[in-house]
Amino acid sequence: MRMYDVIMKKRNGEELSKAEIDYFIDGYTKGTIPDYQVSALMMAVFFRKMTEAETHYLTMAMAHSGEMLDLSAIHGIKVDKHSTGGVGDKTSLALTPMVAACGVPVAKMSGRGLGHTGGTIDKLESFPGFTTALTRERFIANVNRVGIAIMGQTADLAPADKKLYALRDVTATVDNMSLIASSIMSKKLAAGADAIVLDVKTGRGAFMRRQKDAVALAEEMVKIGKNAGKYTAAVVSDMNQPLGFAVGNALEVREAIDTLNGNGPADFVELCLTLGSRMLLAGRICENEKEAREKLQKVIDDKSALKKLAEFVEAQNGDASAVYNPDLLPKANIIEPVLSEYDGYISYIVCDEIGICSLILGGGRETKESEIDLSVGIILKKKVGDYVRKGETLAYIHANDREKAEAAKRRFLDAYFFSDRKPAKSKLIKTIIE
Amino acid sequence: MRMYDVIMKKRNGEELSKAEIDYFIDGYTKGTIPDYQVSALMMAVFFRKMTEAETHYLTMAMAHSGEMLDLSAIHGIKVDKHSTGGVGDKTSLALTPMVAACGVPVAKMSGRGLGHTGGTIDKLESFPGFTTALTRERFIANVNRVGIAIMGQTADLAPADKKLYALRDVTATVDNMSLIASSIMSKKLAAGADAIVLDVKTGRGAFMRRQKDAVALAEEMVKIGKNAGKYTAAVVSDMNQPLGFAVGNALEVREAIDTLNGNGPADFVELCLTLGSRMLLAGRICENEKEAREKLQKVIDDKSALKKLAEFVEAQNGDASAVYNPDLLPKANIIEPVLSEYDGYISYIVCDEIGICSLILGGGRETKESEIDLSVGIILKKKVGDYVRKGETLAYIHANDREKAEAAKRRFLDAYFFSDRKPAKSKLIKTIIE
Repeated sequence: MRMYDVIMKKRNGEELSKAEIDYFIDGYTKGTIPDYQVSALMMAVFFRKMTEAETHYLTMAMAHSGEMLDLSAIHGIKVDKHSTGGVGDKTSLALTPMVAACGVPVAKMSGRGLGHTGGTIDKLESFPGFTTALTRERFIANVNRVGIAIMGQTADLAPADKKLYALRDVTATVDNMSLIASSIMSKKLAAGADAIVLDVKTGRGAFMRRQKDAVALAEEMVKIGKNAGKYTAAVVSDMNQPLGFAVGNALEVREAIDTLNGNGPADFVELCLTLGSRMLLAGRICENEKEAREKLQKVIDDKSALKKLAEFVEAQNGDASAVYNPDLLPKANIIEPVLSEYDGYISYIVCDEIGICSLILGGGRETKESEIDLSVGIILKKKVGDYVRKGETLAYIHANDREKAEAAKRRFLDAYFFSDRKPAKSKLIKTIIE
Repeated sequence: MRMYDVIMKKRNGEELSKAEIDYFIDGYTKGTIPDYQVSALMMAVFFRKMTEAETHYLTMAMAHSGEMLDLSAIHGIKVDKHSTGGVGDKTSLALTPMVAACGVPVAKMSGRGLGHTGGTIDKLESFPGFTTALTRERFIANVNRVGIAIMGQTADLAPADKKLYALRDVTATVDNMSLIASSIMSKKLAAGADAIVLDVKTGRGAFMRRQKDAVALAEEMVKIGKNAGKYTAAVVSDMNQPLGFAVGNALEVREAIDTLNGNGPADFVELCLTLGSRMLLAGRICENEKEAREKLQKVIDDKSALKKLAEFVEAQNGDASAVYNPDLLPKANIIEPVLSEYDGYISYIVCDEIGICSLILGGGRETKESEIDLSVGIILKKKVGDYVRKGETLAYIHANDREKAEAAKRRFLDAYFFSDRKPAKSKLIKTIIE
C-alpha cells in the first residue's frame, strides 16, 4: 500500500477502506508516513468529507493507536461525560458527584482549559492539594471505593489523534465534522467507559457557533459511539451566554457547591438534570427520565451529592473542608462592580468575550505553558433578558491586579448589548440526540 | 503574514494576492514554510483552482526564485521551444538546426528523459563527446557564433518549482492545469528567451491524454507567457502513436538526420514545419506562415540545416562526422523483426507502451539515477491505418540483450490493436493557440 494512492483515492472522492485508514494512522503514528502527505490527505478530506464507515474506522484506528484503558476492574456500567467546552461550564463539578451519589460509577479523564474556555482539572485544583496524577491502580480503586475518579489525559491516550490534531491546527484542516468528531471520540473510546454522554455547546461562546453545526457534530459523535458498541447520547445546549453566573476557576467551584446545596442557578441545574438523567439511564439505574430526574434532585436535597464531592476531593489528596466552607477556596483581593452605562434589556452577550475577560484577569491560559490564577474571574448579576438601569451592577470582577481589572471591565462592558424591547427567550436545551 | 491564513483563504475559495503568493514561494524556497503547510495549500488549489492572476503571480515568483538567465548578450530575438514530452519525439533535433539555419538564434535548456518519454540531452549524447555542461559564457558565445546552443537545466533554475513539483509528486496534487502550466513556464521564463513556442502533446503517449486537457494546458501556458510580456504560441499535436518511426535515442537522431536530408517521415516533417514557422514568426524573420514554411523547406533542400546540426554538435565537443555518416552512431547488436499475429488494419496503438518497450530495452530511465543504452529502441514499420497480413513485419527491435528483446517484443505486440475496417484518420495538428 502507498500513501500516495490513499491521498489520490480520497482526492477523487472514493471511500477509503478500513485497511487504508489503518495503514495511514499506523504509519503516521510510527512516523513512516510524513506530515506533508497527511496534511494533503486532510485537505482532501475537508473537501470530500468522510462517510460514516470511514469516520468509524478512523476513530477506532486513532483510539487503538496508544493505550486502551481497561476499566473492567470497576464494578457496574462506567459512564463518561464530555463537554465540547464553554464559558462558565462547571457542569462536571456538580454533575459527577450527583451521578456517583445515585450509584453510577464515574471514571473520567479531563483536560485543562485553553483560550476562552476553562478546564475541569484547573477548577478542581482550587481545592488545596488536589491532584489528578493518579496511577491506573489508584484511579480504579478510587472509582470502586468512592464512585468517582478524575485523572489527567495520559500522553499515551490516542497519540495518533494528538499528532493529527496538531497538524490540522496549522494547515487549516480543523473544521470538518467527521475529523472533529473522531478526534473527541477516539479519546473517549480509549479512556474505556461503557457509555458516553456528550454535552455539545452551541453559540457565541462555543466551538460550534451555529446550532446546525453543533447538531451535526452531535449526530456524528453519537453515530461513532454507537458504531463502537457504546451507549452514546448527546445534549446540544446553549452557549450564547455563560452557564450560571460564575466564570473563573474557584468562583465556579463555589457555584457548583452552591448547586449541591440546593442553591444553583436555574439554567445550570436544568443542564445537570438533563445530562445526569442520560447518565443514569446509561448506567441502567433508572427506567425513565422522570425517575432519573427525581433521583438526581433527591441527592441534592439530602446533601448526599455534596458529601460525594467531599469524598472525591479527599480521595485525590484535596482539602475537602472547602466543600463545607467555600470561604476557604482561593479568593481575589480586588472585587469591583461593573456598572451599566445604559438603560434597557440585555439583548445579547458576546459570550466568548466574557471568557476572555477571565483570561485577561489571569484565570485562563493563552498558551499551554501559561500559569493560571485560580481566584480571579467574574460573577454575573445580569444576563440576557434582564432589564437594567444605568449605574446598576451588571457583574463583579474578581481580580488581583488593578490594571487587569480595568482592562477586563472595559472588555466586559463592550460585550453586553442592550435593547428597548425584551428579547425572545432562547432555549437552554436545543435538542437531544440518542 | 501567516501561512495558515494563506491556506485558509485558498481553502475558502478566495483569490490570493501577489503578496501572499510571493510570501509563500519565498518562504518555501528558503525553508521557513514547511512541506506540510505547502502540501495542504496545493490540495486546496487542486479543489479551488487558481485564477489567471494567481497563476501569473505564482509563475513569476517561481521563475524569480533562482537565477534569471540573462541572454541580452545574444543578438536578435531568442526563441525557445518546449515539448510536453512524447514517444519518438525527436523534434528539437531537427527543428532547432532548421530554425537556426533560417537565422533565428536558439538558446535552449533541455532535460533528460524519464519514464516512457525520452529527453533531448540523452539523444544528443549519441554523438560521441557531446556535452551540455556549458558555462554561461560559452553558451552565449555559441549561440552568437553557431546560432544554437543547448545546455542542461542548472540547479538554480526556478528552485521553487523543483521543490514544489517534488512535493506535489508525492501528495497527489500534480494534476491541476494552473500548477502544471506554471511549473513549465517558470523554467522557460527563467531561461531567458524572448519568445516561447510550445508543443503540447495529447493522446495515449502524452502527459495529457485527453485533447480537452491538452488544449486547456496550452491556453493556460500561452496566457502566462503573454502576461509575462513574451510572444508565446502553442501547437497541440497528436501523441496517440509515436512521432515518425524511430523510438530510442540514437535511432531518433538518425531519423532527425534523415529528415534534414529530405527523407523525413511525413508526420514529423509536418510538425517541424508547423512549430518552426511559429518560431520564425516569433523571431520576426518572416511576414507570414507561408513564407516561413518555404524558408524552412529551403534549409532542408539546400542542406544548410544539416550543416547547422553538424556545427552545433561540434561546438559542444561532439563528433559531427556522424551527421554525414549516421552509421557511426551507437548501434545495437540484435535487430529482430516483430511479426504481426493478425490480418487487418492497425486501429490503435497503446502509445505509452511503445515508450515502455524502449525503456525495457534499456533506452530510458525508470528512476533519475538509471544509466541508459543509447543504441537500443524500436523502428516502426506500420502505424495506425496501415493494413498488415499475419507474419508481416510491424517493427524492428534493436537490442543488446536477448531476454529484454523478447520482453519488449511481447509488450509491443500487446500494444497493437487491429480491425477489419480502416480507422478514421486522426489529425496530427489538433489546434494552434497563439
